[in-house]
Amino acid sequence: MTPEGFFLAQLIEDFRARSTVALARAISIIEDETDGFQDLLRTLLVRPPLAKRIGVTGPPGAGKSSLVAGIATICLAQGERTGVVAVDPSSPNSGGALLGDRIRMNDLSTEPGIFIRSMASRGSFGGLATATKDVLGLMDAFGFDRLMLETVGVGQTEMEVVSATDTVVVVLVPESGDTIQAMKAGLMEIGDIFVINKADRSGAVRLQKEMTEALNLRDTSMFLNNSFRSDTYHEGVSEEVTVLQQADWDIPVLLTDALSEEGISELLSAIEAHHNWLEESGGLASRRRDRARAHIGEVVNRELRRTTWASVETSLRLEMGLNDIEAGKGTTYSVAQDILGELLR
Amino acid sequence: MTPEGFFLAQLIEDFRARSTVALARAISIIEDETDGFQDLLRTLLVRPPLAKRIGVTGPPGAGKSSLVAGIATICLAQGERTGVVAVDPSSPNSGGALLGDRIRMNDLSTEPGIFIRSMASRGSFGGLATATKDVLGLMDAFGFDRLMLETVGVGQTEMEVVSATDTVVVVLVPESGDTIQAMKAGLMEIGDIFVINKADRSGAVRLQKEMTEALNLRDTSMFLNNSFRSDTYHEGVSEEVTVLQQADWDIPVLLTDALSEEGISELLSAIEAHHNWLEESGGLASRRRDRARAHIGEVVNRELRRTTWASVETSLRLEMGLNDIEAGKGTTYSVAQDILGELLR
Repeated sequence: MTPEGFFLAQLIEDFRARSTVALARAISIIEDETDGFQDLLRTLLVRPPLAKRIGVTGPPGAGKSSLVAGIATICLAQGERTGVVAVDPSSPNSGGALLGDRIRMNDLSTEPGIFIRSMASRGSFGGLATATKDVLGLMDAFGFDRLMLETVGVGQTEMEVVSATDTVVVVLVPESGDTIQAMKAGLMEIGDIFVINKADRSGAVRLQKEMTEALNLRDTSMFLNNSFRSDTYHEGVSEEVTVLQQADWDIPVLLTDALSEEGISELLSAIEAHHNWLEESGGLASRRRDRARAHIGEVVNRELRRTTWASVETSLRLEMGLNDIEAGKGTTYSVAQDILGELLR
Repeated sequence: MTPEGFFLAQLIEDFRARSTVALARAISIIEDETDGFQDLLRTLLVRPPLAKRIGVTGPPGAGKSSLVAGIATICLAQGERTGVVAVDPSSPNSGGALLGDRIRMNDLSTEPGIFIRSMASRGSFGGLATATKDVLGLMDAFGFDRLMLETVGVGQTEMEVVSATDTVVVVLVPESGDTIQAMKAGLMEIGDIFVINKADRSGAVRLQKEMTEALNLRDTSMFLNNSFRSDTYHEGVSEEVTVLQQADWDIPVLLTDALSEEGISELLSAIEAHHNWLEESGGLASRRRDRARAHIGEVVNRELRRTTWASVETSLRLEMGLNDIEAGKGTTYSVAQDILGELLR
């Protein structure tokens, strides 16, 4: 057995013995896309996902980390092992999370029943979204009862990531202001539960009212959309079923104050209620299926890209094509065509 | 000739005759990834890019649209044909831009020398970033002197898009508040010019001072990074050259008030100065080369994905795999492995 093989065998053994050191190391291997990371994932993910997955998203400064810490604390007290993944906006130079926000969460990180990991965009081929889903899968297989995912909900990637959970909690603050901004950022469409955090500040109740009205409007238009969509379903667009079922969930808009811990247990109750509703309505199974479908697609695409660009011939062809473009003898598309012609032959 | 072929031939002729109707139609074909869109791009992109490309980014509500409109107005007065692309955060249900922000820009949209297009995430395979680059290429080939790209600078996709320009302008407002948030969102790393808009509000001068200090800190740390990186360069990492050259550009932090048009012509002067510096330092050529490299990679990857998932066999294999997962007989990774085994054989 090679040294690497020995290291991996030990890692797998430790992971199965529930060593968090092994979990952390496995996550790094995935984040860095170290050679063989796909094999490691294949070995460690041996059963379907079981953990309850909660996504928490909202604009910067809304107090998401404090809310997550608050929820995790209650879960811990209930004896649930909880894993937290915090996805930070990509910052290629700073290389990840700034410290400011994490103080409260760091207090928790020494608790034995909790595991916290920050992720930033590092991998070159898969992208943050796919890597985060891999990590959630890994933490699920590790045996956490509950997984919490925190993202800044403004970018496309972050939205995609948070949508890969069972229950999406959208956090707003009074001064994050008008409902229009939330709608613009696409947050209205993805929330299962809305939270106005820092509810002691002025404007909280007004925002709660505005959001509730906007959500009612949304439900009406979604209902109309769904009636339309249900026709296309019969032609085989199976994803639409989920949307139809969700029309039954009455989206709550809650007030919280993460610092004084006000409203946190109500929030957790709403999360539990949503989970129960998902299970009973069959929505959980279909969400998991949709999630697996998307993730498999991404894993396949990533491997295709890796295989393609690992070829020295392809890289050479690309650099020669770039020379041609600089010399005015080619364009982006003529070079792409040239490379594809070779690959798809 | 088929009707579609006839339609395309007419479209290409009109595009070359500089019909904006043809341009708009070609953009829609690309956005929707209508069959044959890659061939259309290959036909229309016949020369290397020439237009000056300005990216404008910053948090929601910073007044980016007004600034872009202000700059475009001056460019128009100087006789420059200007194309504007506004990338909106992905909102799958609302399908794109909300009206609120665009009022000022819409005033411009009837000017003959200006062309404005909003883009939202629609395509299934390429993603918004690649489609936006395609559209910029198309507008370049159409013959605009200047292209302006506006994005909300918080998500990974939006950052990637705005980085595909020559000069990146980062717009902040006093109440968008602390420098920490800008750093967190990764905005500090991508700006060539910083603007504090709505400079009449309190805190503008303080923010200007803070940003200037933070940028000086950044320059110092980048210089250290670069000294380190220049070693790796000799081993063939050619991208690093750009970074080294950029250390010479002294990043300005300007005050503007887009509504009263204060500071707009100073901003345009800074943009021109940056462009001249880029041209003289050789940075423009290397930025364009890096951009072409990234774009070719994306186009190739998109076509590989399209080819892969257009196969009925692959789709069937995926759905059967999902049944297995539901029955507890497989995992995401075993199904991905199965599909890949077939593809890479």
